[in-house]
Amino acid sequence: MKSVVIHSARDLRIEDRPARDPGAGQVEIRMAAGGICGSDLHYYNHGGFGTVRLKEPMILGHEIAGHITRLGKGVTGLEVGQLVAVSPSRPCHDCAFCRKADYIHCLNMRFYGSAMPFPHVQGAFREVLVADATQCAPADGLSAGEAAAAEPLAVCLHAARRAGGLLGKRVLVTGCGPIGLLCIIVARRSGAADIVSTDLTSFTLRMARQNGADSTVNVGQAPERLAAYEAGKGYFDLLFECTGAAQALVGGIAALRPGGTVMQLGLGGDMQLPVQTMTTKEIQFRGSFRFHEEFFSGVELMQKGLIDVKPLITQTVALEDAESGFQLASDRNQAMKVQISF
Amino acid sequence: MKSVVIHSARDLRIEDRPARDPGAGQVEIRMAAGGICGSDLHYYNHGGFGTVRLKEPMILGHEIAGHITRLGKGVTGLEVGQLVAVSPSRPCHDCAFCRKADYIHCLNMRFYGSAMPFPHVQGAFREVLVADATQCAPADGLSAGEAAAAEPLAVCLHAARRAGGLLGKRVLVTGCGPIGLLCIIVARRSGAADIVSTDLTSFTLRMARQNGADSTVNVGQAPERLAAYEAGKGYFDLLFECTGAAQALVGGIAALRPGGTVMQLGLGGDMQLPVQTMTTKEIQFRGSFRFHEEFFSGVELMQKGLIDVKPLITQTVALEDAESGFQLASDRNQAMKVQISF
Amino acid sequence: MKSVVIHSARDLRIEDRPARDPGAGQVEIRMAAGGICGSDLHYYNHGGFGTVRLKEPMILGHEIAGHITRLGKGVTGLEVGQLVAVSPSRPCHDCAFCRKADYIHCLNMRFYGSAMPFPHVQGAFREVLVADATQCAPADGLSAGEAAAAEPLAVCLHAARRAGGLLGKRVLVTGCGPIGLLCIIVARRSGAADIVSTDLTSFTLRMARQNGADSTVNVGQAPERLAAYEAGKGYFDLLFECTGAAQALVGGIAALRPGGTVMQLGLGGDMQLPVQTMTTKEIQFRGSFRFHEEFFSGVELMQKGLIDVKPLITQTVALEDAESGFQLASDRNQAMKVQISF
Amino acid sequence: MKSVVIHSARDLRIEDRPARDPGAGQVEIRMAAGGICGSDLHYYNHGGFGTVRLKEPMILGHEIAGHITRLGKGVTGLEVGQLVAVSPSRPCHDCAFCRKADYIHCLNMRFYGSAMPFPHVQGAFREVLVADATQCAPADGLSAGEAAAAEPLAVCLHAARRAGGLLGKRVLVTGCGPIGLLCIIVARRSGAADIVSTDLTSFTLRMARQNGADSTVNVGQAPERLAAYEAGKGYFDLLFECTGAAQALVGGIAALRPGGTVMQLGLGGDMQLPVQTMTTKEIQFRGSFRFHEEFFSGVELMQKGLIDVKPLITQTVALEDAESGFQLASDRNQAMKVQISF
Repeated sequence: MKSVVIHSARDLRIEDRPARDPGAGQVEIRMAAGGICGSDLHYYNHGGFGTVRLKEPMILGHEIAGHITRLGKGVTGLEVGQLVAVSPSRPCHDCAFCRKADYIHCLNMRFYGSAMPFPHVQGAFREVLVADATQCAPADGLSAGEAAAAEPLAVCLHAARRAGGLLGKRVLVTGCGPIGLLCIIVARRSGAADIVSTDLTSFTLRMARQNGADSTVNVGQAPERLAAYEAGKGYFDLLFECTGAAQALVGGIAALRPGGTVMQLGLGGDMQLPVQTMTTKEIQFRGSFRFHEEFFSGVELMQKGLIDVKPLITQTVALEDAESGFQLASDRNQAMKVQISF
Repeated sequence: MKSVVIHSARDLRIEDRPARDPGAGQVEIRMAAGGICGSDLHYYNHGGFGTVRLKEPMILGHEIAGHITRLGKGVTGLEVGQLVAVSPSRPCHDCAFCRKADYIHCLNMRFYGSAMPFPHVQGAFREVLVADATQCAPADGLSAGEAAAAEPLAVCLHAARRAGGLLGKRVLVTGCGPIGLLCIIVARRSGAADIVSTDLTSFTLRMARQNGADSTVNVGQAPERLAAYEAGKGYFDLLFECTGAAQALVGGIAALRPGGTVMQLGLGGDMQLPVQTMTTKEIQFRGSFRFHEEFFSGVELMQKGLIDVKPLITQTVALEDAESGFQLASDRNQAMKVQISF
Repeated sequence: MKSVVIHSARDLRIEDRPARDPGAGQVEIRMAAGGICGSDLHYYNHGGFGTVRLKEPMILGHEIAGHITRLGKGVTGLEVGQLVAVSPSRPCHDCAFCRKADYIHCLNMRFYGSAMPFPHVQGAFREVLVADATQCAPADGLSAGEAAAAEPLAVCLHAARRAGGLLGKRVLVTGCGPIGLLCIIVARRSGAADIVSTDLTSFTLRMARQNGADSTVNVGQAPERLAAYEAGKGYFDLLFECTGAAQALVGGIAALRPGGTVMQLGLGGDMQLPVQTMTTKEIQFRGSFRFHEEFFSGVELMQKGLIDVKPLITQTVALEDAESGFQLASDRNQAMKVQISF
Repeated sequence: MKSVVIHSARDLRIEDRPARDPGAGQVEIRMAAGGICGSDLHYYNHGGFGTVRLKEPMILGHEIAGHITRLGKGVTGLEVGQLVAVSPSRPCHDCAFCRKADYIHCLNMRFYGSAMPFPHVQGAFREVLVADATQCAPADGLSAGEAAAAEPLAVCLHAARRAGGLLGKRVLVTGCGPIGLLCIIVARRSGAADIVSTDLTSFTLRMARQNGADSTVNVGQAPERLAAYEAGKGYFDLLFECTGAAQALVGGIAALRPGGTVMQLGLGGDMQLPVQTMTTKEIQFRGSFRFHEEFFSGVELMQKGLIDVKPLITQTVALEDAESGFQLASDRNQAMKVQISF
C-alpha cells in the first residue's frame, strides 16, 4: 500500500507500507481523495511549525474520503462500496475531557498526521485506510473531493457555531486561503449581512468575492481601506482570523466594534497584541481548534446543497505526483485547495 | 386623506382623516403598500383578541412602506422621493426599559394600530403618514411590497436571533402563515440543516416547501408523521411556534429533543401545557414579541438578496377594495400575505 | 440486610433483602443516612405521581451517604471507613445523549428508587449498598446527614448553574420545602441581591427567612403582597418554581420582569399557563431536572463551608421507625427534611 | 472650594476652584470620601499611562461619596443630608452606543478625572461637587468610605457578571491590589468553589487570604506553585487578570483549563501573548472595562451586608495631606486602598 511520507523538510517520499485487516467496529477504506492542508505544508516546507517538529518519518494527511471495501465485525449502518468522509479525530473517550464530551481537548488525542505526540500519529494519505466505523460519515451524493473537504469545513463550522448566531452580523475574515474561504461560505450560509475579507494576493481575493464576500481588501496594497472601518470605534461584530499572523489579528481587532469577537483559527506562535485596546473596547478573543460533531453536520449540509465546497478545489494531482501537489499548494497565486487522487 | 378604519367586528370603513405637517425630525410619507397582519384580521373578524378589544374607531395597519414627500426640520440621511420601510414601533426612550435599550417592553409603547392602550394608537393604513425619521429604513432597490414586508420579517429575525445560532440545527415550524413562512426563510438563511413545518392546509404547506422547508406535515391529515419525531426522546433542536394554538405547541414540545428550545411567536390565550414533560426534558420555552433593531437589519438583508419575501405576497388590492383584501387574507386556502396598494 | 420497601400507597415495609459483593470498580457501603424526598413521599402517600405508578415492590431512597466497608477490584482514591455521599444517578455512558455528556437525559438511566422503567430501579434505603466507585463523593469533614443532603443540593445547584449568573439578581422562590430552601441558600451563595420566597405555612416561611430569604409571602394569607411585585411590568429577574403547582407558577410569571426567567424544578402535571403573557413579556421558561456533575461540586461547597445544609435537617428517625419518618415528612408544619439513620 | 489638582508627574497641588449652582436635575454634594485609584497614581507618578498623557492641569478622583447639600429643580428620590455614592460615569445618552444601552463605550463619555479627551474631564476630588441626580446612589447605612468604594466594586461586579455564573467554579486572581481583592470578594460572594490569587508582596497576599482567597502564591518567590496548576492541560475555569502585566497574564493562561476564560481588568500596554496556546486550548479572553448599572447594584449589595469592602480601606488621610496619601497608596507593602477625607 503506497503512502505519502514526510521524512524532513522537503523530503517527501511515496513509500510502501503494510496494510492490515479491519478489527471489530472498523472498516477498510480504499482512499479516493485527500486534501493538502496548511499543516501538511508546514511539515513539507519547514519540517514542522512552532514547537511541533518532525522527529521520525510520518505519513501525512487528514482531509480524506474513500470507498468502503470491507466491514469489520459488528459494523452496521455502512455498506461496502459506499463513499465516506473520514474524520481524522480519534479521542480516547476515557479521559476527564472526553467524559465531559469535550473531545477536542482529549488528553490522548490521536489526530491523523500529527507530530505533536511521539511516536507521531501516522496520517491517512495512503491507498488503504482502516478506520473506526464511528469516524465515517456516509457521503452519498457527493464527489470524493467534496467529501474530503468535510474536514476543513468542520473546522469553520466549529468556529462559526461557537461564535453564536451570525444572522445580520458584520463579519471580517482575515486570510483567504481554504480556511478563510470556508469561513466566508459558512458566514454567508449563516445569514451574515456584510462580509469583508482581506489577503495579500489577488487570486485568493477574487475567489473570496466569487464565494460570498461582499468586498475584499488587499492589505498589502491598500491597508487604509481596512483602517477606514476603525471609524466610530469600529465596524465589525466578528472577526474570523485565519492567517495566524500578528499583523492581521491586530488590524482586525482595530476594525472591530466595542464588544466585538475574534474567532482565532489561524495557528501562529507568540504575538504582540494590543491588550489595552482589547480591554477598553471589551473585545472577546476566542481560540477555535479543530471540531467534533461538526464533521458530520458539515457532510449533511453539503449533501443538502446548503454548502458548496466545489469551487475551493482548484487542482487535483495523482498520488505519484503528490510532491508537485505540495509545491502547487504552497503557491497562493494559483492554488486554493489541492487534493491528491488515490 | 383616506384611511382604513375599523369600528367594530366586520365594520371596516374607508374614511377621510385630516393630514398634518411633519415636525422637526419627522418626514411626510406617501404610503405605497401596507400588508394585512394577523392582528388586523382579529380586529376585523372579531373586534380584538384575548383581552385586547376595540373601544373606539381605529385606523388599522403597521406593515407599511411609502415614498417620502416632505422632510421636517433637521432631517438628514433621507431624501424626498425615496422609498422607505416604516417601523411601526415607537418606544418612549425614557422609561426604565428604554434606558436599558429593552425598547420592545417600553412602558409607553405607541405601536401603530394597537387597541392595547386607550385611547388606541392609530395605525398607518392611510394615504399620507407623518413619521419620525428614525422610524424610516431606506429601501432603495426594493419594491414597495417587499419594503412593507420588513415588519413581519423583523418579527422572525428577532425570534431567530434570540434562538442563538441555527447553523446545522433541526428546526420545526408549526403554522405556515406569513410568520411561519418567514421563520422558514430565516431558518434556511441561518444555516438550519433540516426544516420541517406543519399546518392544516395544502396551500400553505406547498408554499412552505417552495420557500425552504425540507418537508411538511399536514397535522390535520397525518398527525402520526409528526409524532414519529418523538422517538428516542425527540428530534428537533428548535421549534418556532407560529400558530398560538395549544395543540401545535404541545405536539411540537413532544417532538423536541431534551434541552430543545421553543420560540413562541404565535399569540394565543391561556393554554394547557405538559409542564412535567417540559421539566424532565429540560425544555426551554421563550416568548418572542415584536422586534427592534431587526427592522433595519431585515431591510438590509432583503437589499442584499439574502432574504426574498416576494413569494409571500400572494395578492395586492387597491385601497378602495381594502375590505375584500381582509376577506381574502382570512382564507388560508388561497392567500398568504395580502397587501393594500395606496 | 434490612431495606425500606414500598408495596403500594401507605404500605411501607422493612424487609430483608440479600446483600451482594462489590464487583470490579465498585464499593460496599454501610449506609449511614438517607433523606426522604418528595418523590419518596409520593410513592408512600399515593403510590406514584402523574403517569409514574408503582407496579411492583420497590426499595425507596436516593438521598444517601454511608461509610465504605469494602473496595472492589481496581478501585483507587477511596478508602475503607471513609464517609461518602453516593450519587443515585447511573447513566449508561453509551447512548446518544451520554456521548454528548448529556447524562441527565440518558435513554437508559437507572436512578435509584424510581418506578419510571419496569422492572423498577430499586432504591438505596438499605443497610448495605454496593455502588460504583464513580458514584461516590468523598465527604470527609461532613456529617452523614449533610452528605446525604448532597443530592437535593445538587438539584438546586444544577438549576442555579443553568440560570446563569445570579450576582445582583432579584430572585423569587415559590415553595419553601427542602428544594425551595436549598434554592434560597444557593441563590444567596451566588450573590442574589434580593430573595423573596412564598409558601402556605408559617413554619416553612420562617425557615426561609432564617436561611437567606430577605422576605417571605404567605400566598394563602396575603396574595396581594406577591401581586404588588407586578407593578411596572414586574420585578423579579428569576423565579425558582419549586411547588409544581399551577397557581404558584402563574403567580410567579406575573411578578417577573419582561425577559425574566423561570427555572422550573417542581414536578406537576399539565398546567394552564398564560402563554400570551409569556410571549408578550418574552418570558423564558426552563425545565430543570436532576443534576450531574453538580453532585460532586455540591459536596465540595459544603466541605468548604460555603453552603450549610444542616438547618434543613429537622428530624432524624431510626430505620425501624422509617414509616413515622414518612408521616413526619408529609407535614410541612413541623418538618423540613427528615432523614433515616441506618 | 479646595480641589486636588495634578499638573504633571509628582506635581500635585491643593487649589481653589470656583463652585457652581446645581442645575435642573442636579444636586450639590459636600464630598466626604474619595478613594485613590491606580489611574490617579499613574497621573501622579508618571503623568499618565500608555498613550494617555496629561496636557493640562486636571482635578483627580472618581471614587467618591458625599452628602447632598442642595437639590436642583425637579430632583426627586434624594434628600438633603443623604449620603450618596456618586458614579463618575457620564455617557452622552445620544450616540450609537448609548442608544443600544452600551453606555460604557459611549463615543462622548465624560468620566471624572480622565485625560483621554482634551480638554481633560475634571475629576471629583474637591470639597463640593455638582452632579446629575442620576449619578447618585443613595448609600444610607454605609460609611462614606464604603460608599466611595462603590466605584472599584462596580468594576469587579461588571467583570464577574460578564464572566457568567461563578457557582462552583475554580478561579485564579492575578494581582491583589484593590481590584484583585474586590474580585476575590465578588468571586466568593458569587459561589466560586476554589479561589487562588497571586501577587509579589506578602502584605497583599495576606489580605487576599483574609478576604476570601483559599490560597495564595507569591509568584516572585515560588512561581512553581502556580505552574503546578498547569498539569493535565490546566486547572482554573476563570482568570481575573488584575495586574496589566504580560507575565501574569501569560502565567494565568497556562494554568487555565481548555475552554477557560480570562477576564482582563488590568490595563497594560501591548503584550506578547501565546496565541497558539490560546487557540489550541480554545481560551476565551474578554476585556472588561469600567461598569454601568453595576454601580447601583454594588451599593445595594453592600447595604445588605452581602459584600464587605471595609477591610480594603487601610488608610484615610485629610484633604491637606492628599499628597502623602498618594505616596502611601503607591506602596503595596503597607497600603491597599487609601482614601481622602474631605
